[in-house]
Amino acid sequence: MKLLRVGPSGGERPCVVAPDGRTLDLSSLTADIDGAFLAGDGIERVRAALAEGSLPEAEPFSRVGAPVVRPGKVVCIGLNYSDHAEETGAAVPEEPVVFMKASNTVIGPDDEVLVPRQSVKTDYEVELAVVIGRTARYLDSPEDAAAVIAGYAISNDVSERAFQAERGGQWTKGKSCETFNPLGPWLVTPDEAGDPQALGLRLWVNGELRQNGNTKNQIFGVHHVIWYLSQFMVLEPGDLVNTGTPAGVGLGRGQFLREGDVVELEIDGLGRQRQRLGQA
Amino acid sequence: MKLLRVGPSGGERPCVVAPDGRTLDLSSLTADIDGAFLAGDGIERVRAALAEGSLPEAEPFSRVGAPVVRPGKVVCIGLNYSDHAEETGAAVPEEPVVFMKASNTVIGPDDEVLVPRQSVKTDYEVELAVVIGRTARYLDSPEDAAAVIAGYAISNDVSERAFQAERGGQWTKGKSCETFNPLGPWLVTPDEAGDPQALGLRLWVNGELRQNGNTKNQIFGVHHVIWYLSQFMVLEPGDLVNTGTPAGVGLGRGQFLREGDVVELEIDGLGRQRQRLGQA
Repeated sequence: MKLLRVGPSGGERPCVVAPDGRTLDLSSLTADIDGAFLAGDGIERVRAALAEGSLPEAEPFSRVGAPVVRPGKVVCIGLNYSDHAEETGAAVPEEPVVFMKASNTVIGPDDEVLVPRQSVKTDYEVELAVVIGRTARYLDSPEDAAAVIAGYAISNDVSERAFQAERGGQWTKGKSCETFNPLGPWLVTPDEAGDPQALGLRLWVNGELRQNGNTKNQIFGVHHVIWYLSQFMVLEPGDLVNTGTPAGVGLGRGQFLREGDVVELEIDGLGRQRQRLGQA
Repeated sequence: MKLLRVGPSGGERPCVVAPDGRTLDLSSLTADIDGAFLAGDGIERVRAALAEGSLPEAEPFSRVGAPVVRPGKVVCIGLNYSDHAEETGAAVPEEPVVFMKASNTVIGPDDEVLVPRQSVKTDYEVELAVVIGRTARYLDSPEDAAAVIAGYAISNDVSERAFQAERGGQWTKGKSCETFNPLGPWLVTPDEAGDPQALGLRLWVNGELRQNGNTKNQIFGVHHVIWYLSQFMVLEPGDLVNTGTPAGVGLGRGQFLREGDVVELEIDGLGRQRQRLGQA
């Protein structure tokens, strides 16, 4: 099942993609796609309503928003593909590298991404994002992770490399700028997404293929990552976990994003994003 | 003015401390003390109601919560007192060191703090916390920061030093554990808190004074920090900024917290916290 939110920023309506491709409105079932909806029986109620054929078609819309409301937190895994670790000059990590982005970076999949003021190294990262569906606290093993995952989405973990690595201290400074986390178009449930370790990820800049990876090459797989994080923090319904990016980022090529550039991202079965770069 | 929230976790009621020391209930003015309340004319309405004498006394309560609802983000400044940088073996930073904690770490000022499972280096940090009252995006200068500050509070930036520094990568892992950010008891408005660079901070463990600093020794003052952060991210009403800790943490002494320990914290004019350590 593919859930999405359509309409103007801040006024999105919850929707689902019907088997015939039409977008159906979920407003009769839920006010929004948020942690409470995911933690409750929301997804099952949508499934039942789809089977009944009782959902109305959505009004025409000109924008797709992020498929969940602003997460309580956005947790990211760094250097989780060995080819990416290599291109950045970093060692392959022995356990997951964890950092956070500000959650108000999350925007729709086709919204404008802003190059920050003073930025000279704005960069892209296509990533498989996990949306948490149930509270995860000290999970016993990676096998327990599947039960807390609501679904998957495409994430662009936009990064400013000079802010991240040349301004002292931690990475957060280069990860939390306004508009730095396009998400969506859909939240795809695990039954439909299939094996999370068998998804191709691709990213283009101005039509040129820059990243072309596969989640089978993740150093720490999705279930391991969620189990691992649950040993250090409490993951909650609606939280977002970006699971790392494969090789091909601008940092490795010495080529960065500028106003007017167009970035497109795709993950097998999870749809496609397209962002035009603007200037903050 | 001192704002606070009293009652069971998740069911707190908004209150204010009257000039005569009584706790008055604000439920007739606002459902809660959150970003919308702070960004609107909430504080002015409380001031007017106090002057009118129209607020009822709060029902008896057995717990004080954090003085604002869960923040959108918790941003922290590292190594912001030269004596603390020295005790950790770090260089004095040339610009603010920025990291994030998960915002679901925020608890009441006297709530139990849990030593995480597998932890051997749970540590304390008394800090002056800033609560944001208006959106801050690319502020022109540190002088513009005062206008976006709703008030101040005591924060205990609880940290697990092995998770933070010995498990690879970034600090987040040792900063985001469950219960790791006691906040309060009060949100004290700037007019009442006075000069934020002239506040004594103290912390005791089991009655022994461990930290005894003053915000006059911050490397980067409060207004500089808020201006600086606004160049890298959008701060929003209700967000929390922990501005760093002075010397005396367990890391510098080789002494860490264990179940049963009692930590007390105090900042001039901002009240006092007391936490008993439990085990996760």
